[in-house]
Amino acid sequence: MTKRASFTVPGLTEESGHHVAEALQLRLHALNDLHLTLKHAHWNVVGPTFISVHEMLDPQVDLVRGFVDELAERMATMGVSPNGLPGDLVAKRTWEDYSVDRADAQAHLSALDEVYNGVIEDHRAAIAKVGDVDPITEDLLIGQTAELEKFQWFIRSHLYDGQGNVK
Amino acid sequence: MTKRASFTVPGLTEESGHHVAEALQLRLHALNDLHLTLKHAHWNVVGPTFISVHEMLDPQVDLVRGFVDELAERMATMGVSPNGLPGDLVAKRTWEDYSVDRADAQAHLSALDEVYNGVIEDHRAAIAKVGDVDPITEDLLIGQTAELEKFQWFIRSHLYDGQGNVK
Amino acid sequence: MTKRASFTVPGLTEESGHHVAEALQLRLHALNDLHLTLKHAHWNVVGPTFISVHEMLDPQVDLVRGFVDELAERMATMGVSPNGLPGDLVAKRTWEDYSVDRADAQAHLSALDEVYNGVIEDHRAAIAKVGDVDPITEDLLIGQTAELEKFQWFIRSHLYDGQGNVK
Amino acid sequence: MTKRASFTVPGLTEESGHHVAEALQLRLHALNDLHLTLKHAHWNVVGPTFISVHEMLDPQVDLVRGFVDELAERMATMGVSPNGLPGDLVAKRTWEDYSVDRADAQAHLSALDEVYNGVIEDHRAAIAKVGDVDPITEDLLIGQTAELEKFQWFIRSHLYDGQGNVK
Amino acid sequence: MTKRASFTVPGLTEESGHHVAEALQLRLHALNDLHLTLKHAHWNVVGPTFISVHEMLDPQVDLVRGFVDELAERMATMGVSPNGLPGDLVAKRTWEDYSVDRADAQAHLSALDEVYNGVIEDHRAAIAKVGDVDPITEDLLIGQTAELEKFQWFIRSHLYDGQGNVK
Amino acid sequence: MTKRASFTVPGLTEESGHHVAEALQLRLHALNDLHLTLKHAHWNVVGPTFISVHEMLDPQVDLVRGFVDELAERMATMGVSPNGLPGDLVAKRTWEDYSVDRADAQAHLSALDEVYNGVIEDHRAAIAKVGDVDPITEDLLIGQTAELEKFQWFIRSHLYDGQGNVK
Amino acid sequence: MTKRASFTVPGLTEESGHHVAEALQLRLHALNDLHLTLKHAHWNVVGPTFISVHEMLDPQVDLVRGFVDELAERMATMGVSPNGLPGDLVAKRTWEDYSVDRADAQAHLSALDEVYNGVIEDHRAAIAKVGDVDPITEDLLIGQTAELEKFQWFIRSHLYDGQGNVK
Amino acid sequence: MTKRASFTVPGLTEESGHHVAEALQLRLHALNDLHLTLKHAHWNVVGPTFISVHEMLDPQVDLVRGFVDELAERMATMGVSPNGLPGDLVAKRTWEDYSVDRADAQAHLSALDEVYNGVIEDHRAAIAKVGDVDPITEDLLIGQTAELEKFQWFIRSHLYDGQGNVK
Amino acid sequence: MTKRASFTVPGLTEESGHHVAEALQLRLHALNDLHLTLKHAHWNVVGPTFISVHEMLDPQVDLVRGFVDELAERMATMGVSPNGLPGDLVAKRTWEDYSVDRADAQAHLSALDEVYNGVIEDHRAAIAKVGDVDPITEDLLIGQTAELEKFQWFIRSHLYDGQGNVK
Amino acid sequence: MTKRASFTVPGLTEESGHHVAEALQLRLHALNDLHLTLKHAHWNVVGPTFISVHEMLDPQVDLVRGFVDELAERMATMGVSPNGLPGDLVAKRTWEDYSVDRADAQAHLSALDEVYNGVIEDHRAAIAKVGDVDPITEDLLIGQTAELEKFQWFIRSHLYDGQGNVK
Amino acid sequence: MTKRASFTVPGLTEESGHHVAEALQLRLHALNDLHLTLKHAHWNVVGPTFISVHEMLDPQVDLVRGFVDELAERMATMGVSPNGLPGDLVAKRTWEDYSVDRADAQAHLSALDEVYNGVIEDHRAAIAKVGDVDPITEDLLIGQTAELEKFQWFIRSHLYDGQGNVK
Amino acid sequence: MTKRASFTVPGLTEESGHHVAEALQLRLHALNDLHLTLKHAHWNVVGPTFISVHEMLDPQVDLVRGFVDELAERMATMGVSPNGLPGDLVAKRTWEDYSVDRADAQAHLSALDEVYNGVIEDHRAAIAKVGDVDPITEDLLIGQTAELEKFQWFIRSHLYDGQGNVK
Repeated sequence: MTKRASFTVPGLTEESGHHVAEALQLRLHALNDLHLTLKHAHWNVVGPTFISVHEMLDPQVDLVRGFVDELAERMATMGVSPNGLPGDLVAKRTWEDYSVDRADAQAHLSALDEVYNGVIEDHRAAIAKVGDVDPITEDLLIGQTAELEKFQWFIRSHLYDGQGNVK
Repeated sequence: MTKRASFTVPGLTEESGHHVAEALQLRLHALNDLHLTLKHAHWNVVGPTFISVHEMLDPQVDLVRGFVDELAERMATMGVSPNGLPGDLVAKRTWEDYSVDRADAQAHLSALDEVYNGVIEDHRAAIAKVGDVDPITEDLLIGQTAELEKFQWFIRSHLYDGQGNVK
Repeated sequence: MTKRASFTVPGLTEESGHHVAEALQLRLHALNDLHLTLKHAHWNVVGPTFISVHEMLDPQVDLVRGFVDELAERMATMGVSPNGLPGDLVAKRTWEDYSVDRADAQAHLSALDEVYNGVIEDHRAAIAKVGDVDPITEDLLIGQTAELEKFQWFIRSHLYDGQGNVK
Repeated sequence: MTKRASFTVPGLTEESGHHVAEALQLRLHALNDLHLTLKHAHWNVVGPTFISVHEMLDPQVDLVRGFVDELAERMATMGVSPNGLPGDLVAKRTWEDYSVDRADAQAHLSALDEVYNGVIEDHRAAIAKVGDVDPITEDLLIGQTAELEKFQWFIRSHLYDGQGNVK
Repeated sequence: MTKRASFTVPGLTEESGHHVAEALQLRLHALNDLHLTLKHAHWNVVGPTFISVHEMLDPQVDLVRGFVDELAERMATMGVSPNGLPGDLVAKRTWEDYSVDRADAQAHLSALDEVYNGVIEDHRAAIAKVGDVDPITEDLLIGQTAELEKFQWFIRSHLYDGQGNVK
Repeated sequence: MTKRASFTVPGLTEESGHHVAEALQLRLHALNDLHLTLKHAHWNVVGPTFISVHEMLDPQVDLVRGFVDELAERMATMGVSPNGLPGDLVAKRTWEDYSVDRADAQAHLSALDEVYNGVIEDHRAAIAKVGDVDPITEDLLIGQTAELEKFQWFIRSHLYDGQGNVK
Repeated sequence: MTKRASFTVPGLTEESGHHVAEALQLRLHALNDLHLTLKHAHWNVVGPTFISVHEMLDPQVDLVRGFVDELAERMATMGVSPNGLPGDLVAKRTWEDYSVDRADAQAHLSALDEVYNGVIEDHRAAIAKVGDVDPITEDLLIGQTAELEKFQWFIRSHLYDGQGNVK
Repeated sequence: MTKRASFTVPGLTEESGHHVAEALQLRLHALNDLHLTLKHAHWNVVGPTFISVHEMLDPQVDLVRGFVDELAERMATMGVSPNGLPGDLVAKRTWEDYSVDRADAQAHLSALDEVYNGVIEDHRAAIAKVGDVDPITEDLLIGQTAELEKFQWFIRSHLYDGQGNVK
Repeated sequence: MTKRASFTVPGLTEESGHHVAEALQLRLHALNDLHLTLKHAHWNVVGPTFISVHEMLDPQVDLVRGFVDELAERMATMGVSPNGLPGDLVAKRTWEDYSVDRADAQAHLSALDEVYNGVIEDHRAAIAKVGDVDPITEDLLIGQTAELEKFQWFIRSHLYDGQGNVK
Repeated sequence: MTKRASFTVPGLTEESGHHVAEALQLRLHALNDLHLTLKHAHWNVVGPTFISVHEMLDPQVDLVRGFVDELAERMATMGVSPNGLPGDLVAKRTWEDYSVDRADAQAHLSALDEVYNGVIEDHRAAIAKVGDVDPITEDLLIGQTAELEKFQWFIRSHLYDGQGNVK
Repeated sequence: MTKRASFTVPGLTEESGHHVAEALQLRLHALNDLHLTLKHAHWNVVGPTFISVHEMLDPQVDLVRGFVDELAERMATMGVSPNGLPGDLVAKRTWEDYSVDRADAQAHLSALDEVYNGVIEDHRAAIAKVGDVDPITEDLLIGQTAELEKFQWFIRSHLYDGQGNVK
Repeated sequence: MTKRASFTVPGLTEESGHHVAEALQLRLHALNDLHLTLKHAHWNVVGPTFISVHEMLDPQVDLVRGFVDELAERMATMGVSPNGLPGDLVAKRTWEDYSVDRADAQAHLSALDEVYNGVIEDHRAAIAKVGDVDPITEDLLIGQTAELEKFQWFIRSHLYDGQGNVK
């Protein structure tokens, strides 16, 4: 079977529906990478605030895994086969593996703050891209971005210096 | 009492608020018809995959019944009395009763796929229509459409032929 | 496929089993009409006791929807295909749509009291009819009637005049 | 101690109470055999619909085990010691072990359909037998039969041929 | 207001409906007395099996309180005002207060066995009496009797002598 | 066995412990009467606010039944056998049966307001009486009184006239 | 530290992000005022429908408290420190304290209807204002407005006069 | 209607009951201020222990909101209308708004420690004041103070210097 | 199909995998017999400790039924069709039906102690037999044996004579 | 750090607060000893009522463990470091280890009755001691004593001789 | 920091502990790959049994994700930093991405059967390798293998041909 | 009664079964000491990470209490009376009371790390000792050790210095 099905959602042309769906593939890879990275940090963080950071990450892992499922099922709904495999992820992504192993909370949270900058910017770009064609997909991405931004606030709240700036 | 109340939601003119509300009446009839139809299929499907299709339909019935409630309460909120009665439904609808009785999964799922085509197209048309006036109602319809489209994907996933097309 | 299957429940003749099942079709239509009507009242009741009547109706809606399911699956069990569609309901029923839109609790509860009179009388007639042939179906109808009568007591309890009579 | 106690339920003579109770012993054996058989099928079914049939059987096992408990405790309540042991079951039953091992859903469901024919016919005969003496026991058996017949409908719904007959 | 309302359940004449309802008043008093008595025993039992008998009684208290509610609401449904007050109970009952205070399990369970004999016999008589007129009330009483008889079996199971007779 | 056991709680003399316990017997009767009365009102209230008053009473019934249990087990803990039987209640109480049958909410709530006046005043008198001897029992009665007073506020809140006085 | 952080959400300029956030401060104060006001009404409502109105308000209090949390955390996420204190609220708000103390449902619901008019109009204005810059914040406000409007429908449904107008 | 009702709890004179109730008004304002302040800190705390302090505050918010409800309903029960509005709070309180915005945990917890000093001292003073007149209200305030003191221990436990003193 | 499938678990030879699986068949029969026997005792125990022994047996029934399921699914996993039917059980077992009908707790618990001796010894023998070949199956049997031994301790704890020996 | 902190609860002098706290240390040791002892009895009781006594003890263990936590956190709240270690317990206690190993229920319950006599008397003495200074601590101890006394009633209820005295 | 910490679990030498931990890294990669692959199949399966296979995969995804967490935390516990990132996975693994996109259940289940062959064989090899050094890690791997093998039986049960062999 | 019963588990000789059981007594004392010590730390930890360490300890307390129960019931199952009393613990243990009172997280976690070294080494020694005789007991100890080691990793993760070593 081909990657593109013979249908898309009612009310869109097959071409524009498939176009929206394909725009979601890299978001899917980004979020698959994200939940693997969050788990990696969950295991490797050390230091005096270990337990609170360790526990803060797990609900976000669950949330991001749910977002991956939403994106993949939206792609399938719109008629394009989603790819959720690690080889394809690594081949297609435009970034490298997360660079921190065992390290304290400061190091992990700073690195994750960078990761979130990238994921959120790309999500906002995707919102702008699909919004004119498909309000359903736009709404799905808006909902995910809201939660990603809120969690980045959690991350940043740990990183303030004495002047109110993020270190 | 008249069908139109002496108010609508704050921030809209009474006229435009009532106009949006009235646009929801046929969506309400369509979804009332839909959950009755899904139950009808739930009872009449037969064949080797009986139990899995029988059980797949029930959560969708609950979901659609919830959508009916949302639409009707939105109409009332906007100042127009909703009608949820079968006589009015049959008098106003632009389609016929679902045509399948006892039949195998293939027959029911193909017929339901057609039903969903109609409901979703009309929902998308309503989104376009109300969006300029009332973002609250637009958002409600977007949320319903997302779920209807996802369930149609469930339906279609049963109907593939060997070449990746829906039969 | 025909409406009648090639079997009925063990211990009954196919003819008498199908006869019982067919007697349930109009009960099914009556209860489908009833839960749609209760929801309609749920949305359209107004006045000082709005919230308590609005909330009293919903559990009854759930109950009646469950009764519909019981009846339809009993028909199928006995070898006759049930019909749960609105067109068929309207074509076969011997009553009209509920006549009240937006109105106060008194008006809705009085109208619903009438609706329950009809549904319960017909249920009792069906009990008498099927009881000699099939105690299983009889028991199912008795259980439903008990709950319908109890809810009618709820309705009537709102309608007393000062002398202990229902208005 | 003897199998018969020195009492039965109030309102019945000891003789007629014990007579009803003893009529339940073979129903108890039949249902003990049934839940063992359903589990056996649960483990031995194979083929493309494995998972849905495998999972459909477990809730019925739980239900039938509950019915066994009801029957045995009713016997004890009426003053006769129930026997729930496999040796007694095999010695007293009038049927053989279920004949299917590893086989596809079609084979298991056809065989189970036969098993249900036997169990339900005998339950209906028991209803007729005890009904004149003890409405409590009659009601218990009616309730069990309703559920057994409903599950047989599940079984039969998998077995339709193209003409609406059970294969 | 008078004790009799201007209605009864649909399908019965007002006279026969009220007649059935009034037959339930003494059953209501009997069950109100029963749950008070079970609690009294719950507090006053002593001896080596205190905790298990103390705990065995509470679920039965809850059950019987629910039965009282069923009977009273059935009376109201059928158009007769139920009386649930202790003065009326004591004035109308045909039996005396339970005679045991602080005593061991044997004494309480023997006394309760007698109480159950009375309650169940009268319930069975009521079943016979209302059965011809109203199958709904009959079914309600059958269901209660089944549970009362089962609990009496619990009571009696504690009282066996070495020969299999109840002491 | 005698009503008084050979012990009381550690730290009190047997005489003063038994004295406190006996002071609870009439509180126990009062609360047993109260929950029976609340149920009676629950069944007999009619009129436009039927459902909200009907439902408001049930949680209070459960609460008061729990208070009865607390009092009776406190009596037993302190070494005096509690009496929870209706005959004893009626023989010992200083008040009559509640006087209202089927009536509207106003009538029931006014009558219940009077009932609560009596129960609470007597509870407060008991607090004063036992407080010097046993802070444990005092605390138990304070906790019960708090809840009884709160529910009386619920009752009274229905009875305001236009000037802020309770009718 | 200053009220404005050195960041905002990725994809927006710091200036426009902070601008959106600051637009939420008065919405936060409005909703903090609203849940305090709803609780005030919850305690002060009296009259024949006391219990149903009293209970209708509590779930809305919980909902509005959740909305306050959403708004404040969105402000922080976008880089502006939220203020949730009563002194600041009173200093900045453009309205007065709710004017009703102990009064009947009619008086409270009419006053609350006015309160909702204000809150909803301002929420709709904020939607329009932030929508061009930040779809995430827009979506958050749309979701809150939908619920506020639905609850206002509850309020208004109590206030109908005999002609279908809100009093 | 006046602020004072025509009743108080049974057993107290109207004057002394109203006197106790009025003593609770400022406690109500203090606790309303407290839960708003705790939420404010919840949003504005930053630094390495952000997540643990952020999460520690929320259950206390819920608890204090429950205490506010208790106090207000106790006032109403005793016959005085409670005021829960922010304007009245700010007009009547004897303290200023909490002084900290975005700051680290040390700054917030030190400031909250001061807030708790004030609230608890005033609660203890109220206990002493009402205890002679009304043990029910005294008990309510004791229960609240126990929880407030325990949470202050949580706060103080974060603030120790190396010598075992609170910084 | 044959009893042996064309596969076993990866990492074992087909022969040794099937050999392990077949060793489980008699354990399966033993545990099927055990849960039937425990239920039989549950119904037939009488005497002063009836209720506590009656209730102690039910959780063990559930546990043993779960063990049967584990064993049968392990056999299937390893490639051998499990047999769960009563005729096969009785034909293959090396023991007789449990010998006790209605009897007191002492008689039942002594008899069950003997039953557990047999089941546990055979389980331990099976552990020794399969341990060298398949650590997965060994671990499953160890887990079951731990629970069976713990329940036997429950049984034995009822049977002590005055010198610390089991009667 | 020293055992005494530089603070106590607001409203008490540091000296009197610490004095109250220190009075709780031996209560803490007593309750730590108690839950260890209850578990010891839970494992070592044997005889015909094994299962009911074994199960009666576990909820009390949980309760007493919660009481230990309350006392220790109250000490810390009042500014004194609590000690929960077994060496300190054994060094400071004024009693010996519980003297019973494997024995029947009569022996264990008699020994536990003695243990409760000691714990409760000392709790009542502590209530008297702290009550003048700190009503919060007094209330905590009253609540614990109520539950300890109730459980002692459970224990004593097993020990009655035929004349109503505890053996 | 280095990948190896300065400790391992007590009772093992640091060298042997680290050796065991490093043996788990490839198992971790294999299971991370497996849950991504199962989700991929979950989205891409089509055909008449879509819904049952789609739903069968999700609980296994959750299970395998839990196994990944167990392995990574065991590595960390034994003193070696785990790597959970996709780049490292792809660089180190000895197999390719799963080869199937949108396809029917037969194709996916056959491919997954192969995947499970590989994962389970390697798990069994790891069990053999670590068992002599560390029974804790051995036990963890045995528990995982049991579940993986059971799910492979689910997969294989769909693939039987008519002769009892897996296709 | 003697400490040793006249039985052990089936399949072991009485002597070797009792030998295994006695080897568990000191493990039982060690774990009883451990949960008391964890609670002690829970109350006495102070400093900036108070709340997260305070909360991290409680689930481990529950887990260890469960392990104590497992060990004691295993001893009883194998025929040796377990001792769970503090005097015996202190007399038999080979270590002293935990040495830290009020102190910061670093001090407590370092001290607990030492405690865990001792407990785990002794558990591993016990595994080696009992493994040859009784795989059931061995498996129980392996399961406990796995959890103890995992929690020690939590402890150690707080104690890293900048070079990846535990301080």
